[in-house]
Amino acid sequence: MTGPTARRRGRPRRTEAGAAGDTRERILTAAREEFSERGYAKTSVRGIAKAAGVDSALVHHYFGTKEQVFQAAVETVFAPALSAPDVIFEGPADEVGERFARFLFGIWENPVTRTPLLAVLRSAVDNEAAAAVFRRLVAGQLLRRVAARLGLPDAELRAELAAAQLVGVAMLRYVIKLEPLASTDVEAIVERVAPVVQGHLTNP
Amino acid sequence: MTGPTARRRGRPRRTEAGAAGDTRERILTAAREEFSERGYAKTSVRGIAKAAGVDSALVHHYFGTKEQVFQAAVETVFAPALSAPDVIFEGPADEVGERFARFLFGIWENPVTRTPLLAVLRSAVDNEAAAAVFRRLVAGQLLRRVAARLGLPDAELRAELAAAQLVGVAMLRYVIKLEPLASTDVEAIVERVAPVVQGHLTNP
Repeated sequence: MTGPTARRRGRPRRTEAGAAGDTRERILTAAREEFSERGYAKTSVRGIAKAAGVDSALVHHYFGTKEQVFQAAVETVFAPALSAPDVIFEGPADEVGERFARFLFGIWENPVTRTPLLAVLRSAVDNEAAAAVFRRLVAGQLLRRVAARLGLPDAELRAELAAAQLVGVAMLRYVIKLEPLASTDVEAIVERVAPVVQGHLTNP
Repeated sequence: MTGPTARRRGRPRRTEAGAAGDTRERILTAAREEFSERGYAKTSVRGIAKAAGVDSALVHHYFGTKEQVFQAAVETVFAPALSAPDVIFEGPADEVGERFARFLFGIWENPVTRTPLLAVLRSAVDNEAAAAVFRRLVAGQLLRRVAARLGLPDAELRAELAAAQLVGVAMLRYVIKLEPLASTDVEAIVERVAPVVQGHLTNP
């Protein structure tokens, strides 16, 4: 419980709030790395605490259970995606599909955001608690907001089918690495996929 | 090495070929169950042999390495899907998308075929060797054959984008269980997804 972490216990010279923010951030970074490397099932709060150089009790204090730590770690990864509804509905209505596709591929094409996204996807496929977090964030936040903007019947189903096209491409391109899909220029893919997303979202 | 499996060592009363076929089948069944329950990484040839009541050497004799056992186990799961090109190209050309969608959802909606398919998907997301098997079977056999029937430029990319829509729906509906997608009647989904598959496959 003490040992190598004890040296971090002393009050730092910065303000209390700043120190707490730093610790929280350090735990989140460690959590993302642990979940990425080991997957949800094999990651423990104890392991995250150790990697962050803090006591397990502090992890529980800031975040609660392992599922809650996972949710917090995933939220930081999804934070840019959660701004999607604003981004994709800004501009011509007949280009919503293209902006949605471009936005999501932008996240996947960037190695910095791709790695944690892959970890989330792997965990969600493998573990029900992780899938529940994925549902709350992706469906509950991102897709519900997209649906609310559509104002059409079956808006939520529409948003999910549009997302399914993009998730499927991401699976086959970035995870399974099917060829020729994996090495096709992303612009060529956007060109073929954007009308599908547009259709799901707006077709009568 | 012997123990509980020794009683199976005596030559059975059937013909050699029949006995070999039975043993092979028993190993495959055990392999499917082990890979389903534990995932690719945690399954061992030794564990499969134990579950099948045979010696590990016999598993190696029939199939080779763990990756080859996995491929053989997956092939038996994919066997019905590999007949898809014939099924989906039989009938009106403007209903290819609908038949493709209906065919794949038929496999997913049936619990008997869904469970091993889920296991394959989980393994492929989590493990590069399993992903390689998925690539060889799904891309190398199923999608290449669909593409060959299309006779269009970019036929392979088209087949993969069509598959991506279906894989994405399968992921969100059967694995992540997003609502309302997970509990929407499959016919309503086919109705929305079939034109997308048709478009990817045949649009100019």
